[in-house]
Amino acid sequence: MERLALEELQQQLPADVLVTNPATIESYRWDRANDPEAGTPLVVVRPTSTEQVQQIVTIAAKYRIALVPRGAGTSLSGGSTAVDNGIVLSLERMNSIEVHPQTRSVTAGPGALNAEVKVAAAEHGLWYPPDPSSFEICSIGGNVATNAGGLCCVKYGVTTDYVLGMTVVLADGKIITLGGPCIKDVAGLSLTKLFVGSEGTLGVITEVHLRLIPRQKQPTTMVATFPSLESATQAVQQITRTMRPSMLEFMDHATIQAVNAATGMGLDDQAAALLIAQSDESTASAVEEIQRMEAICTEQGATEAFCTDDPEEGEAFVTARRVAIPSIERMGAVLLEDVGVPLPKLSELVVGINQIATRHQVSIPTMAHAGDGNTHPLVVLDPTDPEQQARAHQAYGEIMDLAIGLGGTITGEHGVGRLKRPWLQDYLGEDIMELNQRIKDALDPLGIMNPGAIFDATDKEN
Amino acid sequence: MERLALEELQQQLPADVLVTNPATIESYRWDRANDPEAGTPLVVVRPTSTEQVQQIVTIAAKYRIALVPRGAGTSLSGGSTAVDNGIVLSLERMNSIEVHPQTRSVTAGPGALNAEVKVAAAEHGLWYPPDPSSFEICSIGGNVATNAGGLCCVKYGVTTDYVLGMTVVLADGKIITLGGPCIKDVAGLSLTKLFVGSEGTLGVITEVHLRLIPRQKQPTTMVATFPSLESATQAVQQITRTMRPSMLEFMDHATIQAVNAATGMGLDDQAAALLIAQSDESTASAVEEIQRMEAICTEQGATEAFCTDDPEEGEAFVTARRVAIPSIERMGAVLLEDVGVPLPKLSELVVGINQIATRHQVSIPTMAHAGDGNTHPLVVLDPTDPEQQARAHQAYGEIMDLAIGLGGTITGEHGVGRLKRPWLQDYLGEDIMELNQRIKDALDPLGIMNPGAIFDATDKEN
Repeated sequence: MERLALEELQQQLPADVLVTNPATIESYRWDRANDPEAGTPLVVVRPTSTEQVQQIVTIAAKYRIALVPRGAGTSLSGGSTAVDNGIVLSLERMNSIEVHPQTRSVTAGPGALNAEVKVAAAEHGLWYPPDPSSFEICSIGGNVATNAGGLCCVKYGVTTDYVLGMTVVLADGKIITLGGPCIKDVAGLSLTKLFVGSEGTLGVITEVHLRLIPRQKQPTTMVATFPSLESATQAVQQITRTMRPSMLEFMDHATIQAVNAATGMGLDDQAAALLIAQSDESTASAVEEIQRMEAICTEQGATEAFCTDDPEEGEAFVTARRVAIPSIERMGAVLLEDVGVPLPKLSELVVGINQIATRHQVSIPTMAHAGDGNTHPLVVLDPTDPEQQARAHQAYGEIMDLAIGLGGTITGEHGVGRLKRPWLQDYLGEDIMELNQRIKDALDPLGIMNPGAIFDATDKEN
Repeated sequence: MERLALEELQQQLPADVLVTNPATIESYRWDRANDPEAGTPLVVVRPTSTEQVQQIVTIAAKYRIALVPRGAGTSLSGGSTAVDNGIVLSLERMNSIEVHPQTRSVTAGPGALNAEVKVAAAEHGLWYPPDPSSFEICSIGGNVATNAGGLCCVKYGVTTDYVLGMTVVLADGKIITLGGPCIKDVAGLSLTKLFVGSEGTLGVITEVHLRLIPRQKQPTTMVATFPSLESATQAVQQITRTMRPSMLEFMDHATIQAVNAATGMGLDDQAAALLIAQSDESTASAVEEIQRMEAICTEQGATEAFCTDDPEEGEAFVTARRVAIPSIERMGAVLLEDVGVPLPKLSELVVGINQIATRHQVSIPTMAHAGDGNTHPLVVLDPTDPEQQARAHQAYGEIMDLAIGLGGTITGEHGVGRLKRPWLQDYLGEDIMELNQRIKDALDPLGIMNPGAIFDATDKEN
């Protein structure tokens, strides 16, 4: 079966599309989740057009071979982990970008990087807001497939809010184009929105059409440090009650230490927590808004609060936040969590995570897109110590259980992928899980699309 | 069959839930689309809880009786037109509203009016932006079911952008609660977004959880009149290229005349078109932004342009726009169109609509949420003249054909309902229509949910 499929791929596609060299294939087995259970694929394909994707999907359907669509391979939940004897469908070469200033939109191949889309938009005075921390290395197709978030989402929304349309190759090889440059369109079911966040389980996204907005105003920045987790989360709660900061980020003590160690930035390492807030209202309003945020932080017991409308100074603090994940990764391997809760539960969540860290004797620095209640605890792993790893995995699961118990979600912006699949039914419940499965079965009856992501891989061969 | 279903409804539900009085039932046959083919329902039910809705859906499924969910009955495309021997499920009594300031969100019953949600939010200094022209009389459940738009959507987005979660009774009677107060949540497929805009064809929405934002700043207003349709649409194009007005509305000559006739407002009735724009940036920025819009209008040949930061004066112009539909309805019955195009095609669309009006000798005043490219041509009908009505219906269809030909949509914000169903496949194409149907069949295998809306009613009885 696999041999026949491979032969047919070789016959139909240009030689440069197929990667069969084992050393190169090896590099496509994992994404940034580093799943130790990653399989060994039959072949990696790197198509350059929707039509080539159609040929590949058609062959995969004919021989019932699993297909794993892959953007830049930066998934943190194993959304693009390879499966044994499957096809890794890398979209990295489909990376064209065309900005349409007249409709304030952009058409991009799924392999274009988020940062490249931002740069292309900026050349026309326009802005594509969603900004995952990994925006310089993650693909726009992956962003759409996971409904990625980021730092500015607290004011500007997440990826789905910018997706006007897309081209998809369905699991039976049909090519469809959903939506387009119409800003409002309610004709038929919201299929565009259904494919956003579907993690490659319903079809392969081969082009996206995204909305742009005029460039952001220069933001004004506030940084405040707090003597306790609770005082920082209280300040978050007070700020979001009445204001829409364009950024509201949180770092705990361990994260501050990691950033200082990696960058020598000299953030206050006595603080239990630090908040970075920005306002991008017009200058006078932004200053006024930032001062209100500063007053709230001081009321909530901040040990220090500092405001600046100097863009470079502000950007330095944002950079500190952006380098937090790499800084912690220097401490060892990590399991990057992505739990979110309703804002009033943020304090219980971050305090609870600290307790889990203490109980299991595992380091878990935590940062958060605090204004969205979306946190990233990083469970640090010692790759040389199996016993520590067992404790770390225990802690990883308990953090999700904690979030579910607080009315929260197991994933705010990274996706379920393969790593979080075991917790999905606990979170959604049986009825909603079954509803997910009904839609999966309706669109991918053979179960070839990214098996193991979101849904259990099932053997549908008859 | 119907008799048994009715008996079971009578046994299981409190007496006040069932309406069997023919005179009262009569008033539930139509919505604002006034479909002459409206059926006569078996019964109207007015439940007061999700559990009662569950009982009703379960009985409907058992006896395969069609269910037509209904909010306030303001659909303009026949989304809640009754069907023969079906059940009209009116959600008007499920109208509770609870604002949660701590999560900046609101939980509402589907029967609550949009205006009531806005008022409840305002009591906490918060704002629910989506504002259909009918916001004072349309229900929030209907807004969610149609993904309704409005005037402020050009800056603040449409209903789906504010839906965080909902409770739904599925076609098999299961109750599910999707999403909730977590702002970011990507666990599983985007089912919440799929139900938004599904027009009652996938399940019955019995509660919605909506995101709120801090109250809007007082807007500054500009009104400009133009000697031609093209100059007005060119100004729209130039404004949206670089700015995000909080409102950008268009009225053509016939609409201006109708508004003047109904209100005596004295708008310039020599103008071919009029634009009303608002900016709700902070005061200094808003004035600057409005002045840039004024300069663009003057460049594009506006005969007059007027700016005001007086809120009452600004509101008077917005009211002129809001009363446009009722003003035209005074001229006779209307077929209210809802076509949208990519912004660069707006000029061709409004000019083409004028040509259709001339060709068929039918009055078609047109207004538009111009900044979204979403227009509302109102095809005026003479109820006493069948020959005129035939021409009017011809024009109605040709407007949709024109929009499709310009790469536009047959419905920007009103929904497909029953009136636009004949054009849906022309717009979506066979493959996407089939994909819609696959999801419909997966969620409503018996075809009992709002048959005839979006999808052809099919007889699934075996």
